[in-house]
Amino acid sequence: MRVTTIHGARDIRLEERPEPVISEPTDAVIKITAGCICGSDLWPYRGENPITAGDTIGHEMVGVIEEVGSEVSSFKPGDFVVVPFCTCDNTCPHCRNGAQSACVHSGFTTGGQGEYGLVRQAEGSLVKTDGMPDASMIPSLLTLSDVFPTGWHCAVAARVKAGDTVVVVGDGAVGLCAVLAAVQMGAEKVIAMSRHAPRQEIARAFGATHVVAERGAEGLTAVLDITDGVGADAVLECVGTDDAMRTAFGTARPGSMVGFVGVPHGVELPIRKMFSKNIGLAGGVAPVRRYLPELLDMVTSGKVDPGLVFDTVMPLSEVAEGYRAMDERRAIKVLLQP
Amino acid sequence: MRVTTIHGARDIRLEERPEPVISEPTDAVIKITAGCICGSDLWPYRGENPITAGDTIGHEMVGVIEEVGSEVSSFKPGDFVVVPFCTCDNTCPHCRNGAQSACVHSGFTTGGQGEYGLVRQAEGSLVKTDGMPDASMIPSLLTLSDVFPTGWHCAVAARVKAGDTVVVVGDGAVGLCAVLAAVQMGAEKVIAMSRHAPRQEIARAFGATHVVAERGAEGLTAVLDITDGVGADAVLECVGTDDAMRTAFGTARPGSMVGFVGVPHGVELPIRKMFSKNIGLAGGVAPVRRYLPELLDMVTSGKVDPGLVFDTVMPLSEVAEGYRAMDERRAIKVLLQP
Repeated sequence: MRVTTIHGARDIRLEERPEPVISEPTDAVIKITAGCICGSDLWPYRGENPITAGDTIGHEMVGVIEEVGSEVSSFKPGDFVVVPFCTCDNTCPHCRNGAQSACVHSGFTTGGQGEYGLVRQAEGSLVKTDGMPDASMIPSLLTLSDVFPTGWHCAVAARVKAGDTVVVVGDGAVGLCAVLAAVQMGAEKVIAMSRHAPRQEIARAFGATHVVAERGAEGLTAVLDITDGVGADAVLECVGTDDAMRTAFGTARPGSMVGFVGVPHGVELPIRKMFSKNIGLAGGVAPVRRYLPELLDMVTSGKVDPGLVFDTVMPLSEVAEGYRAMDERRAIKVLLQP
Repeated sequence: MRVTTIHGARDIRLEERPEPVISEPTDAVIKITAGCICGSDLWPYRGENPITAGDTIGHEMVGVIEEVGSEVSSFKPGDFVVVPFCTCDNTCPHCRNGAQSACVHSGFTTGGQGEYGLVRQAEGSLVKTDGMPDASMIPSLLTLSDVFPTGWHCAVAARVKAGDTVVVVGDGAVGLCAVLAAVQMGAEKVIAMSRHAPRQEIARAFGATHVVAERGAEGLTAVLDITDGVGADAVLECVGTDDAMRTAFGTARPGSMVGFVGVPHGVELPIRKMFSKNIGLAGGVAPVRRYLPELLDMVTSGKVDPGLVFDTVMPLSEVAEGYRAMDERRAIKVLLQP
């Protein structure tokens, strides 16, 4: 089968590899209907994360069950499933406490940019749709693998509640999904910080009430103007850089929470400010499985359409060009069809 | 009048200064019934915080109103009041949001280790008792000025709830009050980390179910043993050092919160762990006024006796010895009688 591999900075290849096989009774093999490229894939792509040459890359997928291990009883060949980027048994003390991404059997999904995927802990990790979904639903279903629950987790971590004023830092697919989450949770003002017209447009489609294009000190001033000098009730940091974190803490009102879901790279937390202003920080790797039942309902009922974040669809054979398009910000998020 | 001043590391003096006078219509002058020495006073005492020689020191007090400014209408001479260590108008957007320590008119109470104190923003900051309290109530009332609401705030920030397992790092007066707070909030297991017998005793009197005397890796192992390998649902960090913060994050279960109220000194936050384990951090300067009505009720009804943290009572004239006793950990907390 064909699967995407990384061999060095900006060296993405589609290679022939053996199809995955069940090696544990908790495994499942999935025939991938759609995969995609994640903003976090750009860290190794840009040489900012260490890699092992030849590793497969890609952790998001939806598809059809091909085969299951002997301990997988809720899924059978032919079921259409969403595969969370982090897998879990969904029964350990951490899972029962809503921290599925820290499951004692946790793992990361791999091979998502390919033809077949192997899912560990399939029983605990997967959720299936009610029958085979219409092709038009695939993009939104695919966001359930990572970006929509990750944006949702950011809003949960920052304790967004009805009536809040929320700032979202980052206009990647996760940031846009965080806008959608805040709106769905009843936030009254949702301020998307974004300089790019196509992303601003999606933010508005998701319900953002304000767009702030300025950065740095000017961005902070713009947010303070919108909030009558008070700052935001909750801030959703969806990038992972020190600049983004500074903006987050700069726009958060005293006593509020910053949610963070961007993998931190070179972030120095302003502990003195956190202390003097009582601004908390919570978040991390999203416990995708925790949110899946609720978010799957929202998607299949048509209440939300997070699939809008996929502005580009490509055949799997063009995956290298997909990376280039995302790296150069020509694409927000690329959906890959095997 | 006599008031305590600091002139350098370990140089505490009781000096004659003019009595405070009303200079703003929002001021009140208090005849101090009791003041005390705070763990945070030990930072400048030990030369770890910069000072200006001759500054007064001491920010906790209870006493009787001597005089009020023209805009103070809820208090009159003769009222017995608790003075929060941080003052606020209790009407600004931050105060209305429960972040009184970040009030737009916030300030810190000074002169608490003396005979008379000046309170800014008296109308918003003070709370009074119902009549003159019995002398036996003074220690517990005095804890309302800082340590009890600060310990309480730590538990609120860490979102302690009924049934939780809570670890408290730090066995100073604030840590002990945090134990009391967690117990009052319904925590099922409260693990006090303390090596000192008199402090362990107070922790138990406040309701701690476990005491862990070990530190470092052994302390973490002991907590994991008590929690069946899972870690605590909430951790209350009441010291402010890097070691204490490491212990806090080491004992917190995935998905939990660390509350912090010790002024951070040289703390490096483990952002990677916070991210991978979804352990949040919240807290800071306690918004004392927010909690005062509730905590004052708890004290005056006899439901709690936080005054137990005062193991030493001295006349104001012995204040320098009081500092030595706390510095050398011969005293947990020293109450000073003018």
